[in-house]
Amino acid sequence: MPLIVRPIGMIHSPLEDPAGAPIQPVYADGLTGAVEILEPFAEGLADLEGFDRVWLLYWCHRSAEARMRVVPYRDTRQRGLFATRAPSRPNPIGLSCVRLLRIERNVLHVADLDILDGTPLLDLKPYVPEFDSFPDSRPGWLARPNAPRRRADRRFHDRPGPPQTSA
Amino acid sequence: MPLIVRPIGMIHSPLEDPAGAPIQPVYADGLTGAVEILEPFAEGLADLEGFDRVWLLYWCHRSAEARMRVVPYRDTRQRGLFATRAPSRPNPIGLSCVRLLRIERNVLHVADLDILDGTPLLDLKPYVPEFDSFPDSRPGWLARPNAPRRRADRRFHDRPGPPQTSA
Repeated sequence: MPLIVRPIGMIHSPLEDPAGAPIQPVYADGLTGAVEILEPFAEGLADLEGFDRVWLLYWCHRSAEARMRVVPYRDTRQRGLFATRAPSRPNPIGLSCVRLLRIERNVLHVADLDILDGTPLLDLKPYVPEFDSFPDSRPGWLARPNAPRRRADRRFHDRPGPPQTSA
Repeated sequence: MPLIVRPIGMIHSPLEDPAGAPIQPVYADGLTGAVEILEPFAEGLADLEGFDRVWLLYWCHRSAEARMRVVPYRDTRQRGLFATRAPSRPNPIGLSCVRLLRIERNVLHVADLDILDGTPLLDLKPYVPEFDSFPDSRPGWLARPNAPRRRADRRFHDRPGPPQTSA
């Protein structure tokens, strides 16, 4: 049963190469970018200002094919894929909580971006602490990561990118 | 540019009708169910035990067509769709943080379920407070919801369901 998704916009980011990109928004050091929403959907942005953060759901368009065991960035040994946030997944849907700086018409200016330039946006949801924040939730093997890595390399990506920037 | 997603499993839930279903996991009063992963993907569940919570990404298969202005369950006036968590979206991808009780082979037993029975699962990610928990993030209009509703009705659903159960 194949299901079809269509991009509702595009993410513009200074991150052109997976290598060196932050692996999560919390490691992005405030990196800023823009989320451009296609015109038919711009009206749906009403009332979004006032939220500090938004969830971006996006298509990891440069990810390699999924494998069920991977060595994640934060470890030195293999883990089950679904116990990791690796971008190579059977459905390569990424999930990032970014800070919303301001909205200009159909463009969201955001910070804490960990997403590659040109990534298709699938959905946008407000971050609601009552629904989404569980500070004491036990984080499994990530309670004691075996690798301190905060930047990606190309292990989950198919295609070589442009030369690595200083990011 | 259409993109194709394929279910990696199915969600089994006592919730058969949108009407009366909790609108978020935090309002589900611990409701339990099972997430069945298709065999080719079962190996990817390794190391997931140890996480208290998991994100489920799923296809809201019974949602109506998206409109860009909606009256959300927690309000009495129209809001921009992307400032709400309504299930009728251009790409009807649902996001729920549920409690992981235990894993038996390819089946996750979970609690705090707000998802309808038979919903196709698209992805499964570990909940990591360092990445996902922002307790002080301002929740826009949801700081003062105009309606106390914690249960859904059929406003975002196309098809009539079976008679409403006691849920």
